[in-house]
Amino acid sequence: MQTLNVALGDRAYPIHIGRSLLGRADLILPHLRTRRVAIVTNDTVGPLYLEALSTALAQAGVGVSAVSLPDGEAYKDWETLNRIFDMLLAERCERSTTLIALGGGVVGDMGGFAAACYQRGMPFIQVPTTLLAQVDSSVGGKTAINHPLGKNMIGAFYQPRLVLADIDTLATLPDRELSAGLAEVIKYGLIRDPEFLAWLEQNLERLVARDADALAYAIERSCRNKAEVVAADETEQGERALLNLGHTFGHAIETGLGYGEWLHGEAVAAGTMMAAELSRRLGWLGEAEVARVGALFERARLPVWGPLLGAERYLELMAHDKKVEAGRLRLVLLRELGRAVIHGDAQQTDIAAAIEARCR
Amino acid sequence: MQTLNVALGDRAYPIHIGRSLLGRADLILPHLRTRRVAIVTNDTVGPLYLEALSTALAQAGVGVSAVSLPDGEAYKDWETLNRIFDMLLAERCERSTTLIALGGGVVGDMGGFAAACYQRGMPFIQVPTTLLAQVDSSVGGKTAINHPLGKNMIGAFYQPRLVLADIDTLATLPDRELSAGLAEVIKYGLIRDPEFLAWLEQNLERLVARDADALAYAIERSCRNKAEVVAADETEQGERALLNLGHTFGHAIETGLGYGEWLHGEAVAAGTMMAAELSRRLGWLGEAEVARVGALFERARLPVWGPLLGAERYLELMAHDKKVEAGRLRLVLLRELGRAVIHGDAQQTDIAAAIEARCR
Ligand SMILES: NC(=O)c1ccc[n+]([C@@H]2O[C@H](COP(=O)([O-])OP(=O)(O)OC[C@H]3O[C@@H](n4cnc5c(N)ncnc54)[C@H](O)[C@@H]3O)[C@@H](O)[C@H]2O)c1
Ligand SMILES: NC(=O)c1ccc[n+]([C@@H]2O[C@H](COP(=O)([O-])OP(=O)(O)OC[C@H]3O[C@@H](n4cnc5c(N)ncnc54)[C@H](O)[C@@H]3O)[C@@H](O)[C@H]2O)c1
Ligand SMILES: [Zn+2]
Ligand SMILES: [Zn+2]
Repeated sequence: MQTLNVALGDRAYPIHIGRSLLGRADLILPHLRTRRVAIVTNDTVGPLYLEALSTALAQAGVGVSAVSLPDGEAYKDWETLNRIFDMLLAERCERSTTLIALGGGVVGDMGGFAAACYQRGMPFIQVPTTLLAQVDSSVGGKTAINHPLGKNMIGAFYQPRLVLADIDTLATLPDRELSAGLAEVIKYGLIRDPEFLAWLEQNLERLVARDADALAYAIERSCRNKAEVVAADETEQGERALLNLGHTFGHAIETGLGYGEWLHGEAVAAGTMMAAELSRRLGWLGEAEVARVGALFERARLPVWGPLLGAERYLELMAHDKKVEAGRLRLVLLRELGRAVIHGDAQQTDIAAAIEARCR
Repeated sequence: MQTLNVALGDRAYPIHIGRSLLGRADLILPHLRTRRVAIVTNDTVGPLYLEALSTALAQAGVGVSAVSLPDGEAYKDWETLNRIFDMLLAERCERSTTLIALGGGVVGDMGGFAAACYQRGMPFIQVPTTLLAQVDSSVGGKTAINHPLGKNMIGAFYQPRLVLADIDTLATLPDRELSAGLAEVIKYGLIRDPEFLAWLEQNLERLVARDADALAYAIERSCRNKAEVVAADETEQGERALLNLGHTFGHAIETGLGYGEWLHGEAVAAGTMMAAELSRRLGWLGEAEVARVGALFERARLPVWGPLLGAERYLELMAHDKKVEAGRLRLVLLRELGRAVIHGDAQQTDIAAAIEARCR
């Protein structure tokens, strides 16, 4: 097991990464305020992993309540969130009860938001079970649900007290979900960690084959990158925006196709190629470097071309992105491989050309 | 105009109290992040005061959107909250847009919670228009909506950037609502400000007659007390609980009768009499002092007797109160007039006797 620390002053918290962690109630106990937890999971993850976690806690003398949500991004809404509140109230959970989210990013985002709101805030622990959740969504304190008019529009910054990433849970993860998580892993290399990027170029097949040591290394390194960024900029005023490499383009793909067609990580991969292509047009990357990025995504079985929605439609969708400040589109681009920057001055025509060049 | 400061470090904010403040866009402008606001009000307050506020802002070059919610505690729910999000999204409000709540505590609590959640937090300003909101709910950063299984169960601690209390708006407030607000005013005297308590005993009729100078003084003094408590204990771990004098008993009255029968302040007045009676039984207050408290409430046209629900029903309702920690009922009692304490050791039989003694 490896342990990282997210340095957020009096809200600092550890991330434990390793094998067979679900049964390790000893890792959880020090972070409970009272011996009482409420576990939020979903109908896919619950049958696989709820018992291991809740039995371990119960044996350690912890009172356990649980609720299982329907599986899917479509349920990341108020109605489903309310099922968490129903359970918390029906089971008389107090504000000192700890909420544990056991699942992927959807369960983590909803569980975290429920914990942020229940009686104005109860302690919260993340037990992420997808690669994406282990390297990205469980770290950093962003929580949210969707609104019919926008994804992740309603939420809170709310930090967990502990993140427990059990690599063994990834064994049951569908291939496509594993690949989607790798898109975010590769992202960390691209935006701020050239050494990690080189490691990924050496070891990508080991990750696809789910080699435990390789996964442990990549997860730890990814979390370290995310934790550093978050510690420097908790509420996304500055550096944290770099984590959105490929995301503004990617969100256009997700929205343009209708949510659920492409996985988030798939859209991020294709979107990152657009960002790389635009960076090339600004003279920051060479053609060979863009190709290197593409090769990495392809080895991770991720798409490197966006769907043909037309550049105009992309631009229209991107104009509605949350990252628009005072009407100005701020894009994350690559100054070089391993160093991202925020760029607010790209010409619409250049952006359109980069999109066109990366669609087919 | 008087100005108070709520000392919360980098989230400190001013409270302006005075007459004709709705038209003072100059007081609001320094607190906006961009020249764009979204005003949340309701169907009673909107027709009275929305135009004054929005015209002043528009003339100062601020883009103004607005939504009016149906009036009433019954609408302090998710569905109505969602109408705020619908407006914010339909009007393309960004996370830099400032949300202004114009109304009583219901509008303030809902507007504040919406601001806390919209894109994980947008700037927020309170323009309270009831006495209760001006002396209590607009200060301190508690926001919430109700859940069918519990009042104020879903919410956030979220501080405004400014509170603008325009005393002139109180001119249209129904008498009963004015009295309800006075219950909280008297509370501050009872829990921590004996000098203010003496002033209230001298001046209560001026408040009931809505004398502007008296109101300005009482509001300023109340806010000062609340601001001091909040600054010392933002998230209600300790001293802030003293603000709940009479509230645990009062909530039992509100729930027992069904919400809406008694106003919150009315229940707090009768509940405070129960707390005073229990304090007397503990030897902390004399009979004459309990009578002094009762006289003050009566002069404010507030009830000093609880409804006859039976002590057992009271205790049952109180056991579900949010202030129960680890199953233990912690009551706010009066060690003397002007000094409240938290007491966790009161005997059930004593509590029951105090309730019985103050019901009829
Ligand atoms: N909070 C953040 O900072 C942040 C960052 C990125 C993404 N997100 C959010 O995360 C969500 C996506 O997360 P995700 O990719 O984990 O999706 P997800 O939670 O929908 O999980 C993907 C699928 O895998 C299943 N699953 C989860 N763990 C499994 C396991 N161990 N074995 C088998 N199946 C398993 C899930 O039930 C689901 O069907 C989105 O809602 C996105 O908005 C949040
Ligand atoms: N956040 C906190 O710290 C806190 C503290 C105390 C109470 N509260 C909440 O506040 C709410 C009660 O607030 P309230 O007493 O202001 O009730 P309210 O908001 O319902 O207002 C009372 C009535 O007066 C009307 N009104 C408001 N201003 C008016 C004006 N100037 N002229 C004429 N009519 C006017 C309202 O439309 C309403 O009908 C409750 O929901 C309670 O939970 C919150
Ligand atoms: Zn992402
Ligand atoms: Zn109150």
